[in-house]
Amino acid sequence: MHLLKSTLQNIQEVDQEIMKEERKKVDGLLKPQGSLGVLEKIAVQLSGIYRTTDLKPLKKAVVVCAADHGIVEEGITSAPQEVTAFMTNNIIVEGKSGVGAISKTMGADIVVVDVGVNADLDNPKVISRKIRRGTNNLAKGPAMSREEAIQSIEVGIEIANTLIEEGYNILATGEMGIGNTTPSSAIIATLTGKDPIEVTGIGANLSEKKLKKKVEVIRKGLEINKPNKKDALDVLAKVGGLEIGAMAGVMIAGAQRHIPVVIDGFISTASAAIAIGLEPKIFDYLLCSHISLEKGAKIASYFLGFEPYLDMGLRLGEGSGATLNFGIIEAAINMTREMEFYSKTEIEVI
Amino acid sequence: MHLLKSTLQNIQEVDQEIMKEERKKVDGLLKPQGSLGVLEKIAVQLSGIYRTTDLKPLKKAVVVCAADHGIVEEGITSAPQEVTAFMTNNIIVEGKSGVGAISKTMGADIVVVDVGVNADLDNPKVISRKIRRGTNNLAKGPAMSREEAIQSIEVGIEIANTLIEEGYNILATGEMGIGNTTPSSAIIATLTGKDPIEVTGIGANLSEKKLKKKVEVIRKGLEINKPNKKDALDVLAKVGGLEIGAMAGVMIAGAQRHIPVVIDGFISTASAAIAIGLEPKIFDYLLCSHISLEKGAKIASYFLGFEPYLDMGLRLGEGSGATLNFGIIEAAINMTREMEFYSKTEIEVI
Repeated sequence: MHLLKSTLQNIQEVDQEIMKEERKKVDGLLKPQGSLGVLEKIAVQLSGIYRTTDLKPLKKAVVVCAADHGIVEEGITSAPQEVTAFMTNNIIVEGKSGVGAISKTMGADIVVVDVGVNADLDNPKVISRKIRRGTNNLAKGPAMSREEAIQSIEVGIEIANTLIEEGYNILATGEMGIGNTTPSSAIIATLTGKDPIEVTGIGANLSEKKLKKKVEVIRKGLEINKPNKKDALDVLAKVGGLEIGAMAGVMIAGAQRHIPVVIDGFISTASAAIAIGLEPKIFDYLLCSHISLEKGAKIASYFLGFEPYLDMGLRLGEGSGATLNFGIIEAAINMTREMEFYSKTEIEVI
Repeated sequence: MHLLKSTLQNIQEVDQEIMKEERKKVDGLLKPQGSLGVLEKIAVQLSGIYRTTDLKPLKKAVVVCAADHGIVEEGITSAPQEVTAFMTNNIIVEGKSGVGAISKTMGADIVVVDVGVNADLDNPKVISRKIRRGTNNLAKGPAMSREEAIQSIEVGIEIANTLIEEGYNILATGEMGIGNTTPSSAIIATLTGKDPIEVTGIGANLSEKKLKKKVEVIRKGLEINKPNKKDALDVLAKVGGLEIGAMAGVMIAGAQRHIPVVIDGFISTASAAIAIGLEPKIFDYLLCSHISLEKGAKIASYFLGFEPYLDMGLRLGEGSGATLNFGIIEAAINMTREMEFYSKTEIEVI
């Protein structure tokens, strides 16, 4: 608890003054004001996070947090639980998954962390920070204890701190955990007050029958656990997941160390909701990326105040959408580094 | 006319059989089917264009076509005509513009072509293919002759053919031409049958008063010229522009040579409308990218059948949005090259 508490206490607001300076700088670039839209907004936000108008090239990593979920025993997933271990141990960490292909394209490193996979992973490339072998079935009681929820967040904080010390200056969040759209829907339903049916989707291609069951299971989980929406740790412990906590930890550490963290899709947005619930200042350190096709993603993003601009029907998770966004963020930085300024020309426009 | 005619005649349909094969290949990648959304669609489209399920890394260029517009004498632009020459000669070709910053990020080369700038450009890096010094004022009569319209397209064809022979296997289209949202709106109004007010926007930050004038000018141009919407060359000649023709030429050559061409924003979409008007098969060779904030862009894109997925409020032109898309297209290719297949695992999903 000490690490989480001290990290949260040390989070400062982004630097509004530097953001004003950067806005002026961007407005002075040789283009119609505002004509590079979101690229301009990203540059201004990055300046406020990094506390500089001299934006530097990125050293990028995507942190993929893996864990299992007791809820799968309800039969509400399209893949068996073993797939979490298999994908984590053999595919994602070897760069042979979706996020691997995209990371390679974007020149980003993949860091894979086992926070709670229900198997012994034997690949030394997977960072082992297992808290427990999967959560409990949230439809029958709390997914985990409050202490375990804190631990999961602290794993994320520690992993992010280590990466930042190694020189990474931007992190994306990703996950692997069969069943993890279920706790994500439960978190978003709790925080938005929406009925589960409005924020529960097909995950990895669920049948209509199973989707109905999934909604019922979430409804039951919320009734039994009664998570307190004003207490993000309570929500995470009762209806969340270990990888959801760890991703929230990455976001918390990024904010405290003045490093931007890129949100991925629905599950990562649930993590953002937890992180922002713990400390609202974190919002300004997070970069959104895409709107997942998973039902509930749009509601969750807009509820938190994000405005994702990639609408590509992605719903793979793993951090794939967040990582795809690295190129756009780099373009925003290069805009400020490569473009000519009006002041150096004799051009006049109205 | 010979080059345009023979190029159009030699355009084949994309290969539907190979696209089916590629769809199967993509569905066999280790992920829930369809979960990489538009990335999957892009890979399938590229296979049909390249005629192979073995997609290769890209060698990328953005072709920036520059020209001036007689219509600026109506006072419906926020910048004076001289800005076209200045930007083309000093900024874009030197990589110091918006598209320069983005090209650098994406590892793409910039090729700048003067098709009709109203000045003598002295930078040897600008390819000089000037047809005339700007178009005529389309509010008073045809912007150019039918022969000049054909020439402008043929310049684009020749430039693209040269680049393809040099090994470039994907091209993006960009432009520089003060006033060129006006002919673009005129083209889109003609082809969609919409009133100019619905497809005319602020270009580079026009005042409300000037916007009103711009709509009137376009309306006048359409009344005087009566472009025949069934004859794309007539539309281009009467209310188009030289760079709009040249970009259409790049698209036509790409289609004929089995090379994908990426559309940029509103002006580039007007070029696509001309190219597709000349030969509907070209549609399948074009990749869309972003929805420009310029009014009319969305109408034009959806009218042609495109579904842009980047919604970033861009309205700079120059090919900036198209070039930003290169990273996403590369991710789609790497998806097919780097990911594991189901058949090589023992994973079962429903």
